[in-house]
Amino acid sequence: MNFAMDSIACHPIAFVRSRFSSTQGMPIQTVAAQDEEGVIELRPEFEPGLQGIEGFDFLILITRLHGVRQESLQVTPFLDDQVHGVFATRAPARPNKLGLSIVKLLRREAGKLHFSGNDMLDGTPVLDIKPYVPAFDVRQTDRVGWYADKIRNLPNTRSDDRMGR
Amino acid sequence: MNFAMDSIACHPIAFVRSRFSSTQGMPIQTVAAQDEEGVIELRPEFEPGLQGIEGFDFLILITRLHGVRQESLQVTPFLDDQVHGVFATRAPARPNKLGLSIVKLLRREAGKLHFSGNDMLDGTPVLDIKPYVPAFDVRQTDRVGWYADKIRNLPNTRSDDRMGR
Repeated sequence: MNFAMDSIACHPIAFVRSRFSSTQGMPIQTVAAQDEEGVIELRPEFEPGLQGIEGFDFLILITRLHGVRQESLQVTPFLDDQVHGVFATRAPARPNKLGLSIVKLLRREAGKLHFSGNDMLDGTPVLDIKPYVPAFDVRQTDRVGWYADKIRNLPNTRSDDRMGR
Repeated sequence: MNFAMDSIACHPIAFVRSRFSSTQGMPIQTVAAQDEEGVIELRPEFEPGLQGIEGFDFLILITRLHGVRQESLQVTPFLDDQVHGVFATRAPARPNKLGLSIVKLLRREAGKLHFSGNDMLDGTPVLDIKPYVPAFDVRQTDRVGWYADKIRNLPNTRSDDRMGR
């Protein structure tokens, strides 16, 4: 199969401003980063798309994990010492390097969205912003695969240099 | 700003097989499509990335909404008759045309993932699959902007030809 033939081109609509310039010590999920603030700086031409966003508490960001050096299909995630298929993990070193960050919107200043729950590198390209709507986005389940035994480690687990710069 | 200069190339890891060949009448969210089944067909080279995925109830799909003809910054979403900034909606006609579908994994057969909660067109390219983990992904809030008054219309609202083919 010719991979290049079905390339899908995306363009950043915004960039994240963050205190994290390397993955070393960075939180690995936004729920473990509730005190970490950041700013989403929209490209000016996309600002009309923000109309009404102030009414939402939480935003879903789809990002490009630009710090990832190498995509892998099998990874040892930060929370475990066992190998898993990358699609059974939230590890960043994944095909297409797409990230999902649910952040809390603190305030908007024109094209700048101040948020908490920052688990992203400075300069992270943002490809989409969606409002978080519990009626659409909440699921309850205990079937969380290998995470079931490991999630208790989340508050004390930070990123390291394994997968990024 | 030269838009082409920072193009980010993504490649489908899988495609959705669905009974929906047009957006007309298609559910607009997976929560309104719990009886609609579909299949994610992985490209064979990505199958090693599925190891362990059977342990999860729900998967998050990041997709390319390939049926969208025209990206817009201000839209009238299916659930409302007012215009909103696209980033304050889940409307498909958005920059980069990225979709987010949380689906229920029913069973895996090698590289095929059978799921329910299908709100996608046949042939939808899948760019990423992430396991849904409530500890990461659940937020509770009543601040859902314009959706607060409109969400009750969800069960009876279907897609139309406004934004797609």
